[in-house]
Amino acid sequence: MSTIKYPNGTKHAQMGLTSDYHSGRGMRLENDLNDSNAYYRAVDRALIYKKPTPIQVVRVDYPSRNRAKIVEAYYRTPSTTDYNGVYRGRYIDFEAKETQNKKNFPLFMVHPHQIEHLKKVHFHGGIGFFLIRFTAYDCTYLVDSEILIHEIETMDRQSIPYAWFEQYGHPVHEGYQPRLDYLSIVDALYFKEERHYEKTQK
Amino acid sequence: MSTIKYPNGTKHAQMGLTSDYHSGRGMRLENDLNDSNAYYRAVDRALIYKKPTPIQVVRVDYPSRNRAKIVEAYYRTPSTTDYNGVYRGRYIDFEAKETQNKKNFPLFMVHPHQIEHLKKVHFHGGIGFFLIRFTAYDCTYLVDSEILIHEIETMDRQSIPYAWFEQYGHPVHEGYQPRLDYLSIVDALYFKEERHYEKTQK
Repeated sequence: MSTIKYPNGTKHAQMGLTSDYHSGRGMRLENDLNDSNAYYRAVDRALIYKKPTPIQVVRVDYPSRNRAKIVEAYYRTPSTTDYNGVYRGRYIDFEAKETQNKKNFPLFMVHPHQIEHLKKVHFHGGIGFFLIRFTAYDCTYLVDSEILIHEIETMDRQSIPYAWFEQYGHPVHEGYQPRLDYLSIVDALYFKEERHYEKTQK
Repeated sequence: MSTIKYPNGTKHAQMGLTSDYHSGRGMRLENDLNDSNAYYRAVDRALIYKKPTPIQVVRVDYPSRNRAKIVEAYYRTPSTTDYNGVYRGRYIDFEAKETQNKKNFPLFMVHPHQIEHLKKVHFHGGIGFFLIRFTAYDCTYLVDSEILIHEIETMDRQSIPYAWFEQYGHPVHEGYQPRLDYLSIVDALYFKEERHYEKTQK
């Protein structure tokens, strides 16, 4: 597996060039996903975007006629997950998290509103999951939201061991294009039954 | 094509009441839709949100330890529509526009990237439409994206007459809860065939 390093990503955050500094994860996974989604869109495989970070604008100046400059604004807590879109006619919704922890995925990284949101995605017939990257191993797992949420809600811990992801998660192949081929996992996990269903209908 | 004028938007932004000054429409339709979507979520009918306005953050100050203050940022052009989510297992995606014009809907209000995006929504099997409000008549029409885009691309005008919307649009009922019951139109337009399909399968 290869490593793509985005030294600038971190640097950007320090210099305030990114609106994601507060989201509790680094920028590498986000960059990989943005690249992958751009590729999926370019080849018409899926239409999936990262949502903009919600910002509360308080004051805007107009130094020139055509360019509004925001001079006071604050980050707001997102009420949903970061990514959504449409794939093979289905609604797709997921949250991506990156941890440097070698043994565990710390649960403080998953916010209660994200759990509630993904429960509702499932209720309404959408496809919901988490993409969890352990940067120490350069390994990203796709985990179905129902399974991870069940684990979070029935256990009495502050974190989920890495071994759990090895067992219940699905490692996402890293490559050149797409960087993270998570839709191949989505195909296998969420469209298997549909294919089966189509076959039995014929 | 034509020049974009945003008289009201600019005012809103100056008062700092909205982060949407540049989106070319007033806030009333947006407020009605946010209320309606909150209601739909509360009664578990659908999971639809307005996306945050994309903002390019350039500089962040940290006046206190826990509160980041954005002190330089700029509005970016959105690459997608404003609203999306999931309803009855289907991906929903739409753009909302409000005009004070009594006779026409000015086409400069629909951006090329929104047209491209809604074409792709259709391609991937999602449900895409426009909600167009004529504030002069307090009337909001739902128009299927394919139909409106076809009209935009085949005609040689800068606007579409109000009468066209009376013919091809579907007036959205306004009430107390939800403020704008656009999902009833979605039911009638996009789930009719599915019901028919289900019936013929049995």
